[in-house]
Amino acid sequence: MSDLRSRSDNTSARAPLATHEIELRVRYPECDPMGFVHHAVYPVWLEMGRTEMLRASGGDYRALEESGVFLAVVRLELRYRRPARYDDLVRVRTSLLAAGPVKIEHAYEVLRGEELLVEAKTTLACLDREGRARPVPTGLALGADPVSAEHAAR
Amino acid sequence: MSDLRSRSDNTSARAPLATHEIELRVRYPECDPMGFVHHAVYPVWLEMGRTEMLRASGGDYRALEESGVFLAVVRLELRYRRPARYDDLVRVRTSLLAAGPVKIEHAYEVLRGEELLVEAKTTLACLDREGRARPVPTGLALGADPVSAEHAAR
Amino acid sequence: MSDLRSRSDNTSARAPLATHEIELRVRYPECDPMGFVHHAVYPVWLEMGRTEMLRASGGDYRALEESGVFLAVVRLELRYRRPARYDDLVRVRTSLLAAGPVKIEHAYEVLRGEELLVEAKTTLACLDREGRARPVPTGLALGADPVSAEHAAR
Amino acid sequence: MSDLRSRSDNTSARAPLATHEIELRVRYPECDPMGFVHHAVYPVWLEMGRTEMLRASGGDYRALEESGVFLAVVRLELRYRRPARYDDLVRVRTSLLAAGPVKIEHAYEVLRGEELLVEAKTTLACLDREGRARPVPTGLALGADPVSAEHAAR
Repeated sequence: MSDLRSRSDNTSARAPLATHEIELRVRYPECDPMGFVHHAVYPVWLEMGRTEMLRASGGDYRALEESGVFLAVVRLELRYRRPARYDDLVRVRTSLLAAGPVKIEHAYEVLRGEELLVEAKTTLACLDREGRARPVPTGLALGADPVSAEHAAR
Repeated sequence: MSDLRSRSDNTSARAPLATHEIELRVRYPECDPMGFVHHAVYPVWLEMGRTEMLRASGGDYRALEESGVFLAVVRLELRYRRPARYDDLVRVRTSLLAAGPVKIEHAYEVLRGEELLVEAKTTLACLDREGRARPVPTGLALGADPVSAEHAAR
Repeated sequence: MSDLRSRSDNTSARAPLATHEIELRVRYPECDPMGFVHHAVYPVWLEMGRTEMLRASGGDYRALEESGVFLAVVRLELRYRRPARYDDLVRVRTSLLAAGPVKIEHAYEVLRGEELLVEAKTTLACLDREGRARPVPTGLALGADPVSAEHAAR
Repeated sequence: MSDLRSRSDNTSARAPLATHEIELRVRYPECDPMGFVHHAVYPVWLEMGRTEMLRASGGDYRALEESGVFLAVVRLELRYRRPARYDDLVRVRTSLLAAGPVKIEHAYEVLRGEELLVEAKTTLACLDREGRARPVPTGLALGADPVSAEHAAR
């Protein structure tokens, strides 16, 4: 992630607060006439990575929304290194970089085996039901708690 | 539509109550590695056809939902005759077949020029905010009113 | 599947030649403003069900395409019984109904626990690289072989 | 675009070589349970903006691919300012920033009326059929030619 990190603020140079991996298989309609995963599919996979990192640390994004807390992507950056293909098994490695009072930063690597396909970074803002910025709830288990950090260290 | 109609109930043998056409251009990620529009994309186009038929007759599906009336697809049938390709200009011809007390039936033809690509049929149920069946609102301008019929006859 | 079956030809009244199940978790962008899985998403899941049924019986759809054999959906029917929601764990139960000389029929049930959400049926045609109908390859492990039938019987 | 531009290299501070606008209506399944356009949808719209800018200047992306020239997104950045909603009419304003020997840079604004919803930037690499970098074809009408610049100046 050296490239995305170097052009970013200093938060991203720190070690991640937590890391989590998911594995998924590329679906047929996720691929385009070039035979590759279309570039607009990766943000969907990143979101799955965040959701599962939250679940792995005891959180539940659906319950969070039902309680009136929404996490909206306000910034997204992707670097496409190599294409994924139909039926590939890929992994999304999600890292929590920073969880500030109103924003949360993650970095991602999409891998096929040890091959880096895509690297990415997102910034989320915490919103209420009316779409206004609100503080990230204290106790929000975003992978920053010790249990998740341990999980990530496997 | 002879094939879908012949195996259907007698409502679909009647002349459509109204017909409307939209044109759209095939998007790159709507196509799969075969180079053809993926079969799961057509239901999205059919929904656009219904929405625009409603708009052409003075209705507004967004306003309908805001007032607590939802139209849910409860049945969908598609026959794929010929593939559409990236960048093709295609037309979706939507016909209102029947608007009963709680259900609405449409038939569709997806065309490229005069070539029939896909024919389809949907049944919609009218639901309230809690997902319970409710009567189709009287005055719901689903293309069945004279103005729309005239529009369709252009 | 009584409803879809009763209106269908006699092939579908037979016991399935093989059955396979996959489990998947509903993704956020698969859901629409009603909060439910959009009806156009289910055909994507059905395709995943077919692919995994083929893999479970030793087949490989990607390799099949690379060898010049394509399976195109020529007919699709869906009945929507109850909505799936974001983050639900659902199962797609795929049944091979018939594998004729040039066409293959499957039936499907999408379930959440024991609750039936959607039932569906597809007909696939076997095509060559130029999109012409060709015979289903003998030895194509479409779940119809004894190993897969045993797998399905688990 | 001040924010994306200020953190970028000096090419993007230059006046765009060409600008083009498309209008589109938000589709129902492009919106998520929050009721907003899902963030993964915008890259699809940006691609449509590029395609139509190319067409407006006399080019044809489909023909380009058929001749063995592929333009792959290698970098994508998006800033989400305000949400778009179902049925909104939005415009995508595409600007060609730079067309180098092997890479092409575009910037984008997604607008609803005069309201800025999303700003974005992409870098495309020119590839051959085998996925190897190749020079951007001379004469490739990417909006940089005088006709297109005139078109954009309307």
